[in-house]
Amino acid sequence: MFTTGKVCLERLPRGGDLAEAVAARAAARGIACAEICAVGAVSRARIGYYLQDRRRYRELDFPEAMEIVSCLGTITEKDGAPFLHAHLALAREDGSTVAGHLLPGTVIFACECLIRELVGDVPRRAHDPDTGLSLWESSFHD
Amino acid sequence: MFTTGKVCLERLPRGGDLAEAVAARAAARGIACAEICAVGAVSRARIGYYLQDRRRYRELDFPEAMEIVSCLGTITEKDGAPFLHAHLALAREDGSTVAGHLLPGTVIFACECLIRELVGDVPRRAHDPDTGLSLWESSFHD
Amino acid sequence: MFTTGKVCLERLPRGGDLAEAVAARAAARGIACAEICAVGAVSRARIGYYLQDRRRYRELDFPEAMEIVSCLGTITEKDGAPFLHAHLALAREDGSTVAGHLLPGTVIFACECLIRELVGDVPRRAHDPDTGLSLWESSFHD
Repeated sequence: MFTTGKVCLERLPRGGDLAEAVAARAAARGIACAEICAVGAVSRARIGYYLQDRRRYRELDFPEAMEIVSCLGTITEKDGAPFLHAHLALAREDGSTVAGHLLPGTVIFACECLIRELVGDVPRRAHDPDTGLSLWESSFHD
Repeated sequence: MFTTGKVCLERLPRGGDLAEAVAARAAARGIACAEICAVGAVSRARIGYYLQDRRRYRELDFPEAMEIVSCLGTITEKDGAPFLHAHLALAREDGSTVAGHLLPGTVIFACECLIRELVGDVPRRAHDPDTGLSLWESSFHD
Repeated sequence: MFTTGKVCLERLPRGGDLAEAVAARAAARGIACAEICAVGAVSRARIGYYLQDRRRYRELDFPEAMEIVSCLGTITEKDGAPFLHAHLALAREDGSTVAGHLLPGTVIFACECLIRELVGDVPRRAHDPDTGLSLWESSFHD
């Protein structure tokens, strides 16, 4: 279990990579475990869909300007370092939407990101043979 | 008004029912009032759309693997027991999305859920004749 | 950086304007800086898509009943007064979605809104010549 630490409201840089920028800002603030929530706009996006049977991500490119409707996720630990996992919903010019797992290659037009620090033992990700994903080690009995 | 209590980061079990799993985990943590936020993936989903004129939910089944783009809601009180109300957005293999009111029958593939306890007088739901929904009793003057 | 203050769970009034109602409730609670998260339903919606090249919003009207899948954003300061910036995702009767920047003209059917106060120096918005948007003044070195 965790308590809530400091909260940061971050304006992320135009032209930056969304995933990198969120992770970098958390690191610069000294935050290793956090919840993140962002809105804004991108100039292009790259998102993933997990092929549950084939155990790999299908990667989708959307080379167009879109609103960031939501970008929700966490920073926890993987392989000894902070690791961002976030899902992204985007809106096109006609209001229609696309969404998926945030991948590198999503370029910020403007983004306002809330990073809420969680204070406690940082969950560690480990390979889960059942799904093929890198998941938190069992949280229930901590 | 509330203060923020403990925060739990929960890995929910593959094959579990999403609504049941969130509610069960909160109960196991001794949390009766909370905000919840989850991302992950489902192997199938069942969501509702409220028919505002007919005052009942239309239920929609999506028997396919999808990303959980967002699952946002609260646990408050209804009929003397904790009650989860959440809305769910999902992404398909081509990035297109479906969304609605989370219903039983949504099956977890992998899910990471943040449960943030709210400490204060738990809001109680009561039938609202104006909408046909079960809503919080008036919060403005508390 | 901020600390978390009080949290409000607000039932917003049927027939009210969503943006106005969120802002009014925060003001009534004495909250000038906050994160907001809402779910519910609307009887109609008006959302914006930012035309990044033309530097203005395209406004889209959806005169139909829809679920509020997510409404995420912040209250910070613009021109010396509290200012709500939120993005909205909506679901139609068939589960399909539309989303964008929340605009006045979105009418509440039922809405449950969490307002989480942030305690610290309120970020101020200023015109950003690079995007044409009103963005937080640089947050990185505060």
